[in-house]
Amino acid sequence: MSTGRLCALVDGVFAIAVTLLVLDLPRPPASAALASTLRHAWPSYAAYLVSFATIGVIWLEHHGMMSAVKVANRRFMERTLVFLLTVSVIPWPTALAAEFGRQGGANARTAAVVYSAILFAMGLAFVASWRYLRRRPELVYEPARGGLQAAERRALAGSAAYLLAILLAFVVPVAAFAIDGALAVYFALSRSGVPALMVRASAGRD
Amino acid sequence: MSTGRLCALVDGVFAIAVTLLVLDLPRPPASAALASTLRHAWPSYAAYLVSFATIGVIWLEHHGMMSAVKVANRRFMERTLVFLLTVSVIPWPTALAAEFGRQGGANARTAAVVYSAILFAMGLAFVASWRYLRRRPELVYEPARGGLQAAERRALAGSAAYLLAILLAFVVPVAAFAIDGALAVYFALSRSGVPALMVRASAGRD
Amino acid sequence: MSTGRLCALVDGVFAIAVTLLVLDLPRPPASAALASTLRHAWPSYAAYLVSFATIGVIWLEHHGMMSAVKVANRRFMERTLVFLLTVSVIPWPTALAAEFGRQGGANARTAAVVYSAILFAMGLAFVASWRYLRRRPELVYEPARGGLQAAERRALAGSAAYLLAILLAFVVPVAAFAIDGALAVYFALSRSGVPALMVRASAGRD
Amino acid sequence: MSTGRLCALVDGVFAIAVTLLVLDLPRPPASAALASTLRHAWPSYAAYLVSFATIGVIWLEHHGMMSAVKVANRRFMERTLVFLLTVSVIPWPTALAAEFGRQGGANARTAAVVYSAILFAMGLAFVASWRYLRRRPELVYEPARGGLQAAERRALAGSAAYLLAILLAFVVPVAAFAIDGALAVYFALSRSGVPALMVRASAGRD
Repeated sequence: MSTGRLCALVDGVFAIAVTLLVLDLPRPPASAALASTLRHAWPSYAAYLVSFATIGVIWLEHHGMMSAVKVANRRFMERTLVFLLTVSVIPWPTALAAEFGRQGGANARTAAVVYSAILFAMGLAFVASWRYLRRRPELVYEPARGGLQAAERRALAGSAAYLLAILLAFVVPVAAFAIDGALAVYFALSRSGVPALMVRASAGRD
Repeated sequence: MSTGRLCALVDGVFAIAVTLLVLDLPRPPASAALASTLRHAWPSYAAYLVSFATIGVIWLEHHGMMSAVKVANRRFMERTLVFLLTVSVIPWPTALAAEFGRQGGANARTAAVVYSAILFAMGLAFVASWRYLRRRPELVYEPARGGLQAAERRALAGSAAYLLAILLAFVVPVAAFAIDGALAVYFALSRSGVPALMVRASAGRD
Repeated sequence: MSTGRLCALVDGVFAIAVTLLVLDLPRPPASAALASTLRHAWPSYAAYLVSFATIGVIWLEHHGMMSAVKVANRRFMERTLVFLLTVSVIPWPTALAAEFGRQGGANARTAAVVYSAILFAMGLAFVASWRYLRRRPELVYEPARGGLQAAERRALAGSAAYLLAILLAFVVPVAAFAIDGALAVYFALSRSGVPALMVRASAGRD
Repeated sequence: MSTGRLCALVDGVFAIAVTLLVLDLPRPPASAALASTLRHAWPSYAAYLVSFATIGVIWLEHHGMMSAVKVANRRFMERTLVFLLTVSVIPWPTALAAEFGRQGGANARTAAVVYSAILFAMGLAFVASWRYLRRRPELVYEPARGGLQAAERRALAGSAAYLLAILLAFVVPVAAFAIDGALAVYFALSRSGVPALMVRASAGRD
């Protein structure tokens, strides 16, 4: 089966996940002093930006993966659905991070652990998709097959960093959010890696 | 008419239904003890996971159906819209299940009945689509026509299981939810059936 | 310009509008008696079903229109955006109808007027799209041009019926909702009209 | 890489942003006097219409841009994601404008500044996309390259007008909203500009 409808579902979920984030930006009641309320809501903006950047970068990475996939069988689609589960849920820990991230103590810790844990799960699901493709190279365009291992390693490195963020969240919650944000920036900028080469090779244009 | 736009609408509705589920995950107020609140919210996660898995599996099944459909006439599109009605409404019984599923007595019963009844309606709508295709084989790719009856029977068996879940919901609500969840897992794993063969035949690749 | 991206935007808006309707189904608090609360919420279900059916039927009609359009210029896209405005807003009067539709007196009247007025605006926007195509037949596939006038008249008849519903809403609100629902059913069933012929001719398949 | 999936993501975000606006239209409680409540909610309708028109017009402009783009590299996709960030967030300042826009004094000022600032950011992100294309003309269809500078200037002029709206918002908030709305109308009507020519040239049809 071709990948058209799978991509349509993926793009739909990403588009909605990214747009639902906006529902948790501060909406003070009519009686509030708007300017000062908005000024104190910086954790909401920070959480919004980190989540938007993360979802955006995951989309870019997934776009790279799909441009290497020739056919999608049912098992691959199931792995993609598990991956979508971890992406579509991101607005939820984002809302928790915005509400509890700046409280001291246990609540900030819980929010940071949950937030990083969901990004970790997302990373693992992405690794699992790459690993499946590596074991089934017949699903992948010929010239892209050489890059599968490096792509899996790249996703694995990201997952490891999210695992580090979980551990750090127990000690310094705000540092965990900082790592999560830095990872989005790092993956956005580091495109000289193998996946990009792979995609270019497979697509035969650019 | 080709099936492109119908698939686009279907994929959109599935993507949104699956992502709207996240709005009903617990969002405790800032004054809550976050960790213990989240720990007690397991019915929300269970409902979320069962509904996500169900919608995901329905999407896979519907994807299989559409890859066998050559042209979609207006009557078939109308049946698909009724099917979409039953899919798009799933976030609603999910929210009821999350809120009332663990209460004892009448409320849990009501939630389990409503939840299973909507999945039952979804199953029936899916049966109706297959049945229509069986009566109009000219809408279906030649090699796939032989598999239509088995596909309808598979959908019918799923519907029967959901009917069983409704009946069970009156006695042991939590068992009804368990059946609903088990059905998603079963349909995800059982792909050696006729529809898969049919799709492979019709698409001529895999 | 081809019509691909315009259709993608349209399908997205329809899919979201239809799925957002679910947010206004009753979500009683944990302390409620669920069964009796749900039983009394029938205006919500009625409003949900009428709006879902209406949006579904509009999608079918718009799908018919777009399968006759060869190229979409900027002016046609602007008219389509105005049409989308009237479609995407439908969840709002639906929520009003669910909340106020069964109250006696002025509130039910207001809800019925607003609901029917927005469907009337949608009808007029659809008429405007057909009219523009009739004045610019070069945008339309050759064999479909003969059906443009009948298609416009069909849309105009629907708009007139919605206007009647507005007037009736001032006297018997519930009758206005009944007309709105009956129109969805009527347009779903009446496909022997010219547009269907037109589409079949233009697409050259079925 | 081709532009198909990027357009799918963009269309999804626009469709959702435009449809989420409806969640902030007035939903009075069952005890309200509906007619008078709705009558006093005109700032909600005004904010809704201005935001819908703005998002619609941005979509038209972006549609024009993408029809000139031959291939999208990773850097261009990243710029598009930043642009999508500014579009997807629009429902938030719209909700603020609806709630605070008609209050006198500081709150209206804050709402108008935030609203105009986000449209300004959107304009700048659009300028950045055009500028990138101008520096990488190999991404653009041959006949469209001559129009890149004019297109960038058009986007720059829009951004300058939004900057003016920000400044005005500090003095006469309502005038800022008026400029924001007028800009949507202006960009909708002014299609005789270079971008349109460019698109027509590049697409070779109309």
